[in-house]
Amino acid sequence: MSSDKSGIARREFLTSVGRAVGGAAMLRTMAAMGIGTVAAACGSSSAGSSGTPVAPPAPAPAPPGMQSPRPGDWDANVGVGKSVVILGAGIAGMTAAWEMAKLGYSCTILEATARAGGRNRTIRGGDTVVETDSTQACTFDADPDLYFNPGPARISHHHEFLLGYCREFGVALETFVNDNHAALIHSSNAFNGQATIARRLHADTRGYIAELLALAVNQGALDQELTATDKTNILAMLQQYGDLDAARNYVGSSRAGFPGQEDAGGRQRGELLNPLQLSDLLADTFLQLRQDFAHGLEQQPTMLQPVGGMDQIALAFESRVAANIVYQAQVTEIRKVTDGARVIYQDEFGASFTVDADYCLCTIPATVLRDIPNDFSVNHQAAITGFAYTSAGKIAFQSRRFWEADHNIYGGISWTDQDITQLWYPNNGFGQTNGIIVGAYMFGGVAGDNFANQTPQGRITSSTTQGSNVHAEYAAEVSRGIGVAWPKVPFQLGAWGTSDPGILLTADDNIFFAGEHLSILQGWQEGAILSAYHAIDLVVQRDTP
Amino acid sequence: MSSDKSGIARREFLTSVGRAVGGAAMLRTMAAMGIGTVAAACGSSSAGSSGTPVAPPAPAPAPPGMQSPRPGDWDANVGVGKSVVILGAGIAGMTAAWEMAKLGYSCTILEATARAGGRNRTIRGGDTVVETDSTQACTFDADPDLYFNPGPARISHHHEFLLGYCREFGVALETFVNDNHAALIHSSNAFNGQATIARRLHADTRGYIAELLALAVNQGALDQELTATDKTNILAMLQQYGDLDAARNYVGSSRAGFPGQEDAGGRQRGELLNPLQLSDLLADTFLQLRQDFAHGLEQQPTMLQPVGGMDQIALAFESRVAANIVYQAQVTEIRKVTDGARVIYQDEFGASFTVDADYCLCTIPATVLRDIPNDFSVNHQAAITGFAYTSAGKIAFQSRRFWEADHNIYGGISWTDQDITQLWYPNNGFGQTNGIIVGAYMFGGVAGDNFANQTPQGRITSSTTQGSNVHAEYAAEVSRGIGVAWPKVPFQLGAWGTSDPGILLTADDNIFFAGEHLSILQGWQEGAILSAYHAIDLVVQRDTP
Repeated sequence: MSSDKSGIARREFLTSVGRAVGGAAMLRTMAAMGIGTVAAACGSSSAGSSGTPVAPPAPAPAPPGMQSPRPGDWDANVGVGKSVVILGAGIAGMTAAWEMAKLGYSCTILEATARAGGRNRTIRGGDTVVETDSTQACTFDADPDLYFNPGPARISHHHEFLLGYCREFGVALETFVNDNHAALIHSSNAFNGQATIARRLHADTRGYIAELLALAVNQGALDQELTATDKTNILAMLQQYGDLDAARNYVGSSRAGFPGQEDAGGRQRGELLNPLQLSDLLADTFLQLRQDFAHGLEQQPTMLQPVGGMDQIALAFESRVAANIVYQAQVTEIRKVTDGARVIYQDEFGASFTVDADYCLCTIPATVLRDIPNDFSVNHQAAITGFAYTSAGKIAFQSRRFWEADHNIYGGISWTDQDITQLWYPNNGFGQTNGIIVGAYMFGGVAGDNFANQTPQGRITSSTTQGSNVHAEYAAEVSRGIGVAWPKVPFQLGAWGTSDPGILLTADDNIFFAGEHLSILQGWQEGAILSAYHAIDLVVQRDTP
Repeated sequence: MSSDKSGIARREFLTSVGRAVGGAAMLRTMAAMGIGTVAAACGSSSAGSSGTPVAPPAPAPAPPGMQSPRPGDWDANVGVGKSVVILGAGIAGMTAAWEMAKLGYSCTILEATARAGGRNRTIRGGDTVVETDSTQACTFDADPDLYFNPGPARISHHHEFLLGYCREFGVALETFVNDNHAALIHSSNAFNGQATIARRLHADTRGYIAELLALAVNQGALDQELTATDKTNILAMLQQYGDLDAARNYVGSSRAGFPGQEDAGGRQRGELLNPLQLSDLLADTFLQLRQDFAHGLEQQPTMLQPVGGMDQIALAFESRVAANIVYQAQVTEIRKVTDGARVIYQDEFGASFTVDADYCLCTIPATVLRDIPNDFSVNHQAAITGFAYTSAGKIAFQSRRFWEADHNIYGGISWTDQDITQLWYPNNGFGQTNGIIVGAYMFGGVAGDNFANQTPQGRITSSTTQGSNVHAEYAAEVSRGIGVAWPKVPFQLGAWGTSDPGILLTADDNIFFAGEHLSILQGWQEGAILSAYHAIDLVVQRDTP
């Protein structure tokens, strides 16, 4: 693996920026490289910070960009004779071990639990979910399609490093549906609390927007903005866009479906629905927000998932670095030593061990790291202590696939303004008798806190009650609920980071930091990989003459 | 299987309509039942009749509807002692045999070829494609993911009868992606003939529409249409809808992606693209039409496909009715006899056989049927003779999955204004080395005629040339092209019917007609099933006292 010219140029550029204009400019440049700022990050579900889910924030203007560092940038054998102790066998840690081993580094991963993957996890029948104050047993039936991804559960098609590893490792992928027009949108404040089939909101919103804009254009209200040719063209376009009639009025559209289309078997094919009232559509901004969701860059089609569960990715990494992993190794101290780092850990029996290495690459979540005795600089320690995380959580149930058989819903997401926020229908095993429905996915905020603070049974009860406001038959169909509240999962204590990575993107002597929270894609596995590349890059720069 | 009240009521209603107001009203009522009119039909791809593909027509207003007839409507044992000869072992014919056998009818299917399924076909390495003037051998590598569906290739999620059979028969389904924001839109007349990544068109179109409408609202141009509250609400909504800035201007959006996003590895994450020029977007209506496509009722997400090829559905039907099928039985005469029908056919050796039955249920495409000697009424014969069909066709190539590895395109469709119209990327086998790309899907019209009139090699050459205008590397990557032009496929002679079914929805003495062309969903397998239900219903009415 040899360095190509662009790789050299990139490093030289970074170095010169650092020299010429100092740390702030360096950080700004790194941000543009996809390794620093959170400006464009939206978490795995466009996290809002309040109890009510909100749409993804529009990204702040970003500085002119460069490419992220990537494996091809590093000189072969740059790490020969050097050692690194990696803390955490999640996606960031295993990426670092896999790539640094290729460069000649001697890698040891200390993993606190008995399992690799971190938040990348798939729960199946027989598994146990341990939280800080509870333990749950998963009682799903044994079946390859009956699984629950409590952490990451979808992959953007442009998360190309993650997808590249899937390709390299032979992890089979299938489509994940974000936007299903047969799914439901439910707001307690709209349409008497009745859920509305998504296609009606899509069609009627486009219809009204097109009708109103066509009217304004025709009235000459936009003559300053549009040439005569533009006006002719935009009227033709709007007619298609909104499915307007010949007079450019929106009088309903087959795009909205037929009466009873939300239920299988009740179709009156050929009859148009009356459009929803514009004022009703507008009165509940929530309904509009849910239509924009799948337009966000990370959420656009095509999205993907591994066949058989997200942990197929973790297992593929693990099989390649397993020899380097020390399991059930709980880090108790992180120290600086001359020209190196020292990590002390305890095994499952409480015995203490010491690992000395040239470098430490720490992917432990800030929520956990802040309580581990260390020699970090004051500024690094302060950043770790103050790092904010979401309180996201999910619950899943086994159920007859009533959503498919009775409502023609195949995959995708229904939305509600209740705490549960979303119902996710499985994107696999279509047509089988039973499936796993994600009965709540709260991204954080008050809803996430409420969820985390309930008992496992309390979560089941409240989620079932709320789910019944979306699907009337819900309580009668779902069972075997099992939830994961990330703030209460040992060695995670949070779902994903939301603070600005700041100084944690810089080395603290021979200690380097990584993890999804230190990337432009917080809450995404691709972010974990980008953060690992950034940390590797800093190490490689040390070892490059 | 007993008749429920609604089934009885439905039949009584139909009969009374027929008695009271005659045939025209009866047809109109049947249309509303999903068995007659083509008003809302859009073919399997919103067929246009010109060489340039056009968006689906807005459906004509339809009369108040009723439910289609369905198996549960029919009395058990109504057919005991009665026989039916079914012509054609496509989806319509096999549906009829499967359902009528349940009712006690003795069913015989005469199938002209050695294969069941009709236009439902999947082509794999080793298969042969025979047209009226050519024969092609498929040289795809042997691999379960390397297949080509030249006929139906996607299933709407609300095609619930077809999906119900998949569930009943255990046909595994997976997602089919219609709308991939990473796919390309190419118009020879726009952007200097350079293909544009779909996400830019989506984001910029929404952005400009929202900006213009917000401006008009702010200027008071729509004060007659909007209350003060509406105005406040719609401005908030438009800001989200278009991803506008604080001043409600559209200045670009991360939804449009970053520079180089159409190519893997070239990403400048964090940098916004300049929006395309509004006048450019408007000047080429084609670009807008392609954004509306996936909003059509039949084309909305989630769409589905059988795992392993569309013929898994045909094979599932066939395995249940195979004992009733006479293969390689070419119908040479269709005659009326007292209280019955007589069909004469030839076997593969030219020997002639006669089948007498109480009823004949004919699913032979009108393009073929018109040349078979028969005793049809003058009006039935005229309808058959005049029935129009599209000249749709497809071509497929084996190729390295450059679209995934180099462009992050996973499934979905790219569009072009050239004859090839569409490129379909495979929705299965993601991440493997090779895949099958559909390199042309022309829905009919001049493009379809041009395709049909070329030699197999000519189709390969022209499709490769045109594909290279969408993907520059196309010619260097694709090979092993194989095309199917439905107008030249024996015993089909057309892709799907486009005429009004008219009198063919009524019995001609003891002869009944079915097939996708006699349904509200022409060009869809669900239409074939609906047409079979309609024909069965007519037969059952005869046998119901």
